[in-house]
Amino acid sequence: MTIAEAAGRAREASYALLKVTEEDRRRVLGRLSCLLESEKEAIFEANRHDMARASEEGLAQPLMKRLSMDDAKLKTLRQGLASLCDMPDPLGRVTLKRELTPGLVLERRTCPIGVIGVIFESRPDALIQIGSLCVKSGNAILLKGGREAAESNRKLFEILRESGRGILPDGWCALMESRDEVNDLLKQDGKVDLIVPRGGNAFIRYIMDHTRIPVMGHADGICHTYIDADADTDMAVEVTVDAKTQALAVCNATETILIHEGAAGRILPVLCEALRKRGVEIRGCERTRAFAECLPADESDWYTEYLDAIVSIRVVSSLEEAVEHINRCGSHHTDAIITENDAAADLFFTMVDSAGVYRNCSTRFADGFRYGFGAEVGISTSKLHARGPVGVEGLCTYKYVMRGSGQTVAGMENGGAKYTHRDLM
Amino acid sequence: MTIAEAAGRAREASYALLKVTEEDRRRVLGRLSCLLESEKEAIFEANRHDMARASEEGLAQPLMKRLSMDDAKLKTLRQGLASLCDMPDPLGRVTLKRELTPGLVLERRTCPIGVIGVIFESRPDALIQIGSLCVKSGNAILLKGGREAAESNRKLFEILRESGRGILPDGWCALMESRDEVNDLLKQDGKVDLIVPRGGNAFIRYIMDHTRIPVMGHADGICHTYIDADADTDMAVEVTVDAKTQALAVCNATETILIHEGAAGRILPVLCEALRKRGVEIRGCERTRAFAECLPADESDWYTEYLDAIVSIRVVSSLEEAVEHINRCGSHHTDAIITENDAAADLFFTMVDSAGVYRNCSTRFADGFRYGFGAEVGISTSKLHARGPVGVEGLCTYKYVMRGSGQTVAGMENGGAKYTHRDLM
Repeated sequence: MTIAEAAGRAREASYALLKVTEEDRRRVLGRLSCLLESEKEAIFEANRHDMARASEEGLAQPLMKRLSMDDAKLKTLRQGLASLCDMPDPLGRVTLKRELTPGLVLERRTCPIGVIGVIFESRPDALIQIGSLCVKSGNAILLKGGREAAESNRKLFEILRESGRGILPDGWCALMESRDEVNDLLKQDGKVDLIVPRGGNAFIRYIMDHTRIPVMGHADGICHTYIDADADTDMAVEVTVDAKTQALAVCNATETILIHEGAAGRILPVLCEALRKRGVEIRGCERTRAFAECLPADESDWYTEYLDAIVSIRVVSSLEEAVEHINRCGSHHTDAIITENDAAADLFFTMVDSAGVYRNCSTRFADGFRYGFGAEVGISTSKLHARGPVGVEGLCTYKYVMRGSGQTVAGMENGGAKYTHRDLM
Repeated sequence: MTIAEAAGRAREASYALLKVTEEDRRRVLGRLSCLLESEKEAIFEANRHDMARASEEGLAQPLMKRLSMDDAKLKTLRQGLASLCDMPDPLGRVTLKRELTPGLVLERRTCPIGVIGVIFESRPDALIQIGSLCVKSGNAILLKGGREAAESNRKLFEILRESGRGILPDGWCALMESRDEVNDLLKQDGKVDLIVPRGGNAFIRYIMDHTRIPVMGHADGICHTYIDADADTDMAVEVTVDAKTQALAVCNATETILIHEGAAGRILPVLCEALRKRGVEIRGCERTRAFAECLPADESDWYTEYLDAIVSIRVVSSLEEAVEHINRCGSHHTDAIITENDAAADLFFTMVDSAGVYRNCSTRFADGFRYGFGAEVGISTSKLHARGPVGVEGLCTYKYVMRGSGQTVAGMENGGAKYTHRDLM
């Protein structure tokens, strides 16, 4: 089957999905959870093949870790499925109800987007996460996983499709296997409503430049932790070390530390020592190098997503300078302030133009699972539609439903009746 | 000043706007309303120049009507400003509040998008509508109006800028005057967050194909009125005539009438007679032509936005066939069903994939003013972000604000605490 055919079938399925009840969508999620457990040996077997091949090809260690499927990952997936199942139905929610004039009532009601195309990295658990979010939100889905995870994806896709058999319309999900198919997918405007690409920066920019279909995602994850003049030393060190080192090849890791000059002498020596102990290479601005031994940072460091055990540090003279740096050099993903000062935190929250603005906690919390969304389809740094971790709500849109009794615009404008605009909820 | 410079100033202003209070934004709207009244003679004078030139150049009558500014239009604008002023602040609304773990609280809070670029047709009142929506929602704005309205736009822009003087940051609004500048605007990704083009189909597709900036709007307005087997004859005729003829060159006018075969014999002769009386040219399918004299419609008619006194009519065998026609040939803008049958209306609401789905009223109601939004920046047929008439809500995004007390992801994952995901609102 060609991609155009698969997209056409998904389009048709997306309409049939509009009639599937919430109970039936929950049943599919329940089945999916059961199948993940009963088929786990087959999943692990397929994954071992992928892992062996990736190892032969010399895949880097952090990527090997993403590629692997084990009991712990399956457990996390099943927990996510359980919480997704428990969540209220995201569809058919009425978010506005207004009488326009007596007998003419406007309602805004949530509904699925339609057909979602997802291109994801070599991380097989993403297939189940994304698939389950689409089941919950009534969307049809075209999936393209990373080449390295081919066998794991094939097995997991089989399980996903099996979960929907007899309940969801045929064609509601399809798996694409070759890279060429991505280019075909990008041409399916009219059939595909949204593309969610996950992966490297250059790849995502390529996607954005080669399709008319709306794209949701993030190209960069340049997150900051700003240590304010009024930061607690222990907290600053502990949170910043977590933000940089708890995981490296992730978009929500802190890549640049900003520190107020009033706190630099007190905190920088301890912080740099702690980072070095974790094997982190430090690139500091000139003022940083007065407080701690490190490599010199150059201008390009402020715009670099290392995805590695490297961090850049810059001393700033004020909170405003920190905010200005973040808005100019960052990627509007997630940025944190460490401070005991409420006014400083409020100003940071208001002025930093990012999907996540945090006080006194690690940027690593930016994640759909941790936010309580059950799973995430990705993290959006776009300001339109959905921002930050995207769960089921980001996969829904709405329509305006209006019920009248013969009203015409001519009748209204000729003074027949007046607009009341009375909210009914 | 170049567009890049204006966009850079607007970007800076967008950050300064984050600190402007609601009271001050209301003050600007109040001033704007006063200035429209006190400067009205100067507005009319500028508009007379535009009208005279347009008339010499032979601008079509419906476009002349759009171009003109008169007391009635000013009154409508000032009514819109008053209702916008009365509306609750769209900014800083908390739409989610959740404890992730004791001491770590996540909040989702609405905020402005940032910098909006609007390219609008030769309709000077649009400048004030869009400008006021941006004031209310705290966005900076780059405006480009139609060439025919140049003098009216210049005067209205002056009034808009004057309203904000001393309250809003310099550079929060700018007017572009040449067509070349549109191409420069399209290149300002990073500085401009959203482009809203209004105007013809081909123009909007050009915009969409030539920028990386998200675009919100609609290319086509192919709206349908479907007359069900259980429609009331009088209501069907009255509503359908309004939907087609109350205004012609508008995106929410009905372009195709679908009618159930069970109602065709009863309603088509009366309907066609009423349409003809209004000077409407009718293009019917073969089955239509058995009931009423008219020109033959061909396949391309189903995909055409006439924006004129022309309508196409097709007889269908079922509600399902009507829905299928609408989803395939329409533009997902606004579609209506005329029926006394509740089940038919519900199925229509569920299955028609459009921004507006109406029962027993005219498609012409699809409009921000009529919906009670005070004004509209445009009507979106995109399914992402905002759908249908876009008011202030569509010009807002949100950010996730998190308040912690030193939480780390390592601490959570090492079993220090559990995620509670307890909703606090």
